[in-house]
Amino acid sequence: MDEMQLYNTYIHKIKTGLQEICLPEEPHNLYEPIHYMLSMKGKHVRPLLTFLAAELFGKEELDDVLPASLAIECFHNFTLIHDDIMDNASLRRGKLPVYKKWNTNIAILSGDVLMVKAYEQLSKCAPAYIPSLLRVFNKIAIEVCEGQQWDMDFEKERSISEESYLQMIRLKTSVLLGGALQMGAILANATDKDVLRINGFGINLGLAFQLQDDILDTYGEKTVLGKRIGGDIVENKKTILLVKLLECISQPDSQKLEYFMTKERDEENKIQQVKNLFAKYNIYEKAVSLKNRFTEIALTELDEIRVPETRKQPLKQIVNNLLNRKS
Amino acid sequence: MDEMQLYNTYIHKIKTGLQEICLPEEPHNLYEPIHYMLSMKGKHVRPLLTFLAAELFGKEELDDVLPASLAIECFHNFTLIHDDIMDNASLRRGKLPVYKKWNTNIAILSGDVLMVKAYEQLSKCAPAYIPSLLRVFNKIAIEVCEGQQWDMDFEKERSISEESYLQMIRLKTSVLLGGALQMGAILANATDKDVLRINGFGINLGLAFQLQDDILDTYGEKTVLGKRIGGDIVENKKTILLVKLLECISQPDSQKLEYFMTKERDEENKIQQVKNLFAKYNIYEKAVSLKNRFTEIALTELDEIRVPETRKQPLKQIVNNLLNRKS
Repeated sequence: MDEMQLYNTYIHKIKTGLQEICLPEEPHNLYEPIHYMLSMKGKHVRPLLTFLAAELFGKEELDDVLPASLAIECFHNFTLIHDDIMDNASLRRGKLPVYKKWNTNIAILSGDVLMVKAYEQLSKCAPAYIPSLLRVFNKIAIEVCEGQQWDMDFEKERSISEESYLQMIRLKTSVLLGGALQMGAILANATDKDVLRINGFGINLGLAFQLQDDILDTYGEKTVLGKRIGGDIVENKKTILLVKLLECISQPDSQKLEYFMTKERDEENKIQQVKNLFAKYNIYEKAVSLKNRFTEIALTELDEIRVPETRKQPLKQIVNNLLNRKS
Repeated sequence: MDEMQLYNTYIHKIKTGLQEICLPEEPHNLYEPIHYMLSMKGKHVRPLLTFLAAELFGKEELDDVLPASLAIECFHNFTLIHDDIMDNASLRRGKLPVYKKWNTNIAILSGDVLMVKAYEQLSKCAPAYIPSLLRVFNKIAIEVCEGQQWDMDFEKERSISEESYLQMIRLKTSVLLGGALQMGAILANATDKDVLRINGFGINLGLAFQLQDDILDTYGEKTVLGKRIGGDIVENKKTILLVKLLECISQPDSQKLEYFMTKERDEENKIQQVKNLFAKYNIYEKAVSLKNRFTEIALTELDEIRVPETRKQPLKQIVNNLLNRKS
């Protein structure tokens, strides 16, 4: 099977699994939003990683992997529902976020239930694995919430250091990718060292992935569903581009930037002016170079795992797909 | 050891355990609210029940019970943080609710983390018990959320049936008491039948407990911290008293009630007038009789458990304490 077929098999399993998650009819206001979220289009990268890690370490019975993979996807969707409230998001994958389509209370409570549904999936794994899976899952769940809190805290700061920014995205985005892989590895009886390595691969892949997201928001070729090019600039979002710029910007340029961020009403001009500043300080190149550094670390971690090279192909392909996209 | 000493031993363990839950310093906005909730005064009935059930079934090593008991208390506090947002509550145990002392976003996220902290406690139980504890815990967690959703849905209805009301409080309040006991029983290796019985005891105790709460809000002797006598009437809250009244009220009295509920601005007069209607239809007596019925069912479930009578004393004492309180 080539990688594409392999992905399709797993994605099919994941989609079917998500549809089969038991969601009662009632209370309608609780379960309809969950159904809405779980049926949205998505790449399902995280649950796919759980399968790929299990396969990497030679797991053959893949039905055992499905519940762990669905747990990750349910948890991810729970965070989207709650984050959208906190971030006052206007769109989620091109559709209305739950808190807008229904209301904040419904989004809080259906998010809560979706988190429990994640644990319900975990409880369906083979009992011998549950204690260690639960420990890993709890750790990443807490870290993801910490990441969201840092993100909100940082929004109020004028500037933040690159170190703080990377720590924030590590928690908010990367640990879940690392955790998804870790769980697959645990289910495939990987050694503790290999579990750490595959986690390291995931963390660094996640960092590269988020930096790529930041870069594409300003430099992407076309808009992704529900996003516009330059949206982050318009919203003064702290991205790696802004963080890098604030690190090295001169005093006069800093005042210009301040003006565009707070006073410029013409959004197209704001985007162009901020991009000019990025260009002046080679911010694009710096961000890409940082992204490449994390990609390399990820691949080094993968290299150190002692399994046949052919088994690593699907994960290497994922790195390619995720990090060389143009939108 | 008499019951009082026994309770104190357990409550001490629970309080110490809550204080020792690992809460990092940072992010401050995430962990301070959790610390605030876990250090509030409270009766700790639910975690106490976990200990009492374990003891009922002869568990001697009580340190094994502590994490399960703390999981229940963490979960309960998570529901309080989120419910207070949804219910727009003005006080929690006489203090400001998290969403008021901080803000809604912080209350959402610190609530989320507290729910994960509950699962973190579960993961500290002896591994052999984790899969079954996790299943029970997930089930009650989902039911409690369903109960909250029904409660919010019912607030918008003009009237609801007694059956719907009881189903709502069963989910919102009782299953957690039942679950706390179930988990103690599981840890003490009780038979499946006995686990069901102790759950039944808890469910019915919970129903009686909630009805008692409804009754005391109007007929209590003194105010409990943060509550006022008649508060439910002022807020037109759907309690067993109002549900029972709407079941049998005459058309003319129904119009009077409607007037007091929507137009009367003098709160003391509103309370008095609604109480007059309760008196006319013997609502107090009907509610007490229903409460007593659930208490009896609870005690019958306890009777059917085949353990030495002396071991049942602490639970019987709890029934007495909870259900014969005057405030």
